[in-house]
Amino acid sequence: MNDATGETRGTAAGAEGGAAADAGPAARPAALGRRAFTGRLLAGGAAAAALGTAAVAATRPTAAAAAARPAATAPAGGEVRHLRMYAEKLPDGRMGYGLEKGKATVPGPLIELNEGDTLHIEFENTMDVAASLHVHGVDYEITSDGTAMTHSHVEPGGTRTYTWRTHAPGRRADGTWRAGSAGYWHYHDHVVGTEHGTGGLRAGLYGPVIVRRKGDILPERTFTIVFNDMTINNLPAGPDLEATVGERVEFVSITHGEYYHTFHLHGHRWADNRTGLLTGPDDPSQVVDNKIVGPGDSFGFQVIAGEGVGAGAWMYHCHVQSHSDMGMVGRFLVKKADGTIPDYEAHHH
Amino acid sequence: MNDATGETRGTAAGAEGGAAADAGPAARPAALGRRAFTGRLLAGGAAAAALGTAAVAATRPTAAAAAARPAATAPAGGEVRHLRMYAEKLPDGRMGYGLEKGKATVPGPLIELNEGDTLHIEFENTMDVAASLHVHGVDYEITSDGTAMTHSHVEPGGTRTYTWRTHAPGRRADGTWRAGSAGYWHYHDHVVGTEHGTGGLRAGLYGPVIVRRKGDILPERTFTIVFNDMTINNLPAGPDLEATVGERVEFVSITHGEYYHTFHLHGHRWADNRTGLLTGPDDPSQVVDNKIVGPGDSFGFQVIAGEGVGAGAWMYHCHVQSHSDMGMVGRFLVKKADGTIPDYEAHHH
Amino acid sequence: MNDATGETRGTAAGAEGGAAADAGPAARPAALGRRAFTGRLLAGGAAAAALGTAAVAATRPTAAAAAARPAATAPAGGEVRHLRMYAEKLPDGRMGYGLEKGKATVPGPLIELNEGDTLHIEFENTMDVAASLHVHGVDYEITSDGTAMTHSHVEPGGTRTYTWRTHAPGRRADGTWRAGSAGYWHYHDHVVGTEHGTGGLRAGLYGPVIVRRKGDILPERTFTIVFNDMTINNLPAGPDLEATVGERVEFVSITHGEYYHTFHLHGHRWADNRTGLLTGPDDPSQVVDNKIVGPGDSFGFQVIAGEGVGAGAWMYHCHVQSHSDMGMVGRFLVKKADGTIPDYEAHHH
Repeated sequence: MNDATGETRGTAAGAEGGAAADAGPAARPAALGRRAFTGRLLAGGAAAAALGTAAVAATRPTAAAAAARPAATAPAGGEVRHLRMYAEKLPDGRMGYGLEKGKATVPGPLIELNEGDTLHIEFENTMDVAASLHVHGVDYEITSDGTAMTHSHVEPGGTRTYTWRTHAPGRRADGTWRAGSAGYWHYHDHVVGTEHGTGGLRAGLYGPVIVRRKGDILPERTFTIVFNDMTINNLPAGPDLEATVGERVEFVSITHGEYYHTFHLHGHRWADNRTGLLTGPDDPSQVVDNKIVGPGDSFGFQVIAGEGVGAGAWMYHCHVQSHSDMGMVGRFLVKKADGTIPDYEAHHH
Repeated sequence: MNDATGETRGTAAGAEGGAAADAGPAARPAALGRRAFTGRLLAGGAAAAALGTAAVAATRPTAAAAAARPAATAPAGGEVRHLRMYAEKLPDGRMGYGLEKGKATVPGPLIELNEGDTLHIEFENTMDVAASLHVHGVDYEITSDGTAMTHSHVEPGGTRTYTWRTHAPGRRADGTWRAGSAGYWHYHDHVVGTEHGTGGLRAGLYGPVIVRRKGDILPERTFTIVFNDMTINNLPAGPDLEATVGERVEFVSITHGEYYHTFHLHGHRWADNRTGLLTGPDDPSQVVDNKIVGPGDSFGFQVIAGEGVGAGAWMYHCHVQSHSDMGMVGRFLVKKADGTIPDYEAHHH
Repeated sequence: MNDATGETRGTAAGAEGGAAADAGPAARPAALGRRAFTGRLLAGGAAAAALGTAAVAATRPTAAAAAARPAATAPAGGEVRHLRMYAEKLPDGRMGYGLEKGKATVPGPLIELNEGDTLHIEFENTMDVAASLHVHGVDYEITSDGTAMTHSHVEPGGTRTYTWRTHAPGRRADGTWRAGSAGYWHYHDHVVGTEHGTGGLRAGLYGPVIVRRKGDILPERTFTIVFNDMTINNLPAGPDLEATVGERVEFVSITHGEYYHTFHLHGHRWADNRTGLLTGPDDPSQVVDNKIVGPGDSFGFQVIAGEGVGAGAWMYHCHVQSHSDMGMVGRFLVKKADGTIPDYEAHHH
């Protein structure tokens, strides 16, 4: 489950479904590009209704096979996509976003776009309190702001279409450079409880958005980790994240609530820049394995599981001492090819 | 008023006054460069006495006109400037810095320099407690430190000249690269209340400093937003910031006091680097719309108002939930060319 | 003393000892490279036993002499080194790491490596509670994780060999860029008090690690400043850091404990990137003199003492107002060549 593991998983329907998209100028095999692309992106049109899970992951080649060929990369965007999303109360009192009725999760589904894509989200509020969908990073008109101040929220039982646009970088008429939309972003409620959505965020109304640039390296797995007050993903302890040595694993880190935190991962590190990957030898960005974050912040990165360090149960945790002591810790379980993890018993904790 | 809106505004005197400066190698019209330059910079010498407001903004071409020609850029520095500044108690108990007696504001006046400029500030403390002027980022000898430890503060009724120098980047004799002074910096008291100026900062003794590099893109408006404890600019709520779609608007963010915050702006974003603008397609900096900050931090950026998103009442706020709920929120009011703002009533709040 | 000044100092034995290492393609004199290299790096093998202090600093040319020739740079790594380290209780209740029995310090000894080096640390826990050695940034297998969860801690009286590896950057088989190990990192206990080492960190079980890349500029002095809860280096006030105008001084900033802080230095500034030095005119990194940090964070930078500002007693402090008011402040004492400091009396405080 998405809310138990933080992982983006796929189904066969998901991996195969969706409108086929141009795989871009592929040095990689067309079939790979096509399947990866259609699988990871939100499926458009009729295919969306067939999705059985909160989010969709690619069927990608194994790490061993991938090592010998160029990494898969994101294609150019430009598609217009449609999606339904529901805000729901979960039986245990949490609130969540879902792509199907009765399937809401915490965090909400991962939404992936390529620069140039437009996404129309038909949002239905199935709850008995007003709610909304506010997004960071992408382009949206004030009518898609998701705030009460701009009347762009949704009353109980109501529906509203939110439109998110994205754009590639480029030069303006005045000669200056305009940044593209690519980034590790997120969406959340801005209405429940207070006019800043404090109650909605506390209950779980948040989720990840990734906008990729043509050429961005694609991961084999994506995990979303939300530090929400003193929880990870509103869970009493951080979820176990599973991968195999050599897999390219993507982390999306989002923070909500009251407190500052520091995101730390054992045995792996990333660049403190747009992608979390250095662009090459001239990229001056600091490489870190610990990063201070506050509410509303988001960033992402990719690691090769176990690269240079091997398999193991690698902790990830907030490095604020009382926060980790109170349970803001999980395990990045990097398995050997045979599925085992050295020096680790699954029931240690 | 500066303390009500956070905006840097100009007068005709300000826009026309000041020593004319070389406009640099201008692809843009010389007259523009000249007026922009003299208007935005602190006027030197006799002209300073004529300034009727806390800070000075340029008379620039409209956004529509500007879009078709190269953006205005900062000239080379190298000027020696003189300024008077006063620390004053305001009637309501706040303390402020001003360029004229009786005209102190919170935040204090925006001071803009170009790399290479030297600024001599004749500082008079009109209050009944010792005070000082401590600056971040620029070059100053220990006699201009503004601390009691170095005896560079000013007793009640006293005067002291503080000298700030700036320099362009360049290569040292040992082959290493020396960074220039350009940046979004700030000044503040370091004496009132405690030897770190805790009382002075709380009362409002702080202001922005911008040092520009030759070629840096110049904005059409500059707004200063100071997160000072649980206030914005010592106000009960964040000021409304007004602009028209297409204008190049600069934000200067400064933090003071006890708490960490996260600066968030709806519908617009910036690069997490020196200027807030990507240098081009190879700049690896993360683009963000939310940034964690703590006391003493400062950064700045420029946006094109409403670019890709249109007019609207765009919130800016601290994203720490209790902080925004308690009022650390304001509106970036981006108007259409006809002056209207969609989905917005001025008296909503 | 290391724990009084935060400085890395050397002895003649340290400066001369250790296995001589290749000085790299030296535009600088071979003798300088050799001495600097062997002095600054941890001495390997038998020489380690001869070290009389916690860490080792180079005998480098004076600043005046150095200004006229290229700055010294780090050589390529690739060495295999061995070290003994001890966790000890200090008489005053603190805990510390040391390279010799009875010589533990807070912070622990500075460990410097060059990318490509491997370090085997024979770690002995002389205390009556279990302890460990957990490191950030470098490569280590799960058996060197230093956590109880992975059984890589050390019981009272026990010994364990921790192995840290480092690597240079390079291109992977799939065409993507792999970051090198270079960075300002740190090590700490992960076991004492809680399974996250909260008790060990509070008592002083932490220290700095610097991994350098071939060509990185070498400093003449290195100071380690650890913001640990409301202390600097577990001291009631920040240590005085002494240098002479023109010296290249390196700061390593590490944060531990519960609180966020902002590291501020008067009269000097640095780039917010990997080395704290801009790579050249195209490096877009922000230059700062104030930086928000949280537990587990580390960064470093170099300044030329007094560059553009001259000698003086320059404060460094946490800029959170209550933190500086409570004593999180020290002095960077930059002396003239004649040893004097203007506007400063040593017994002011």
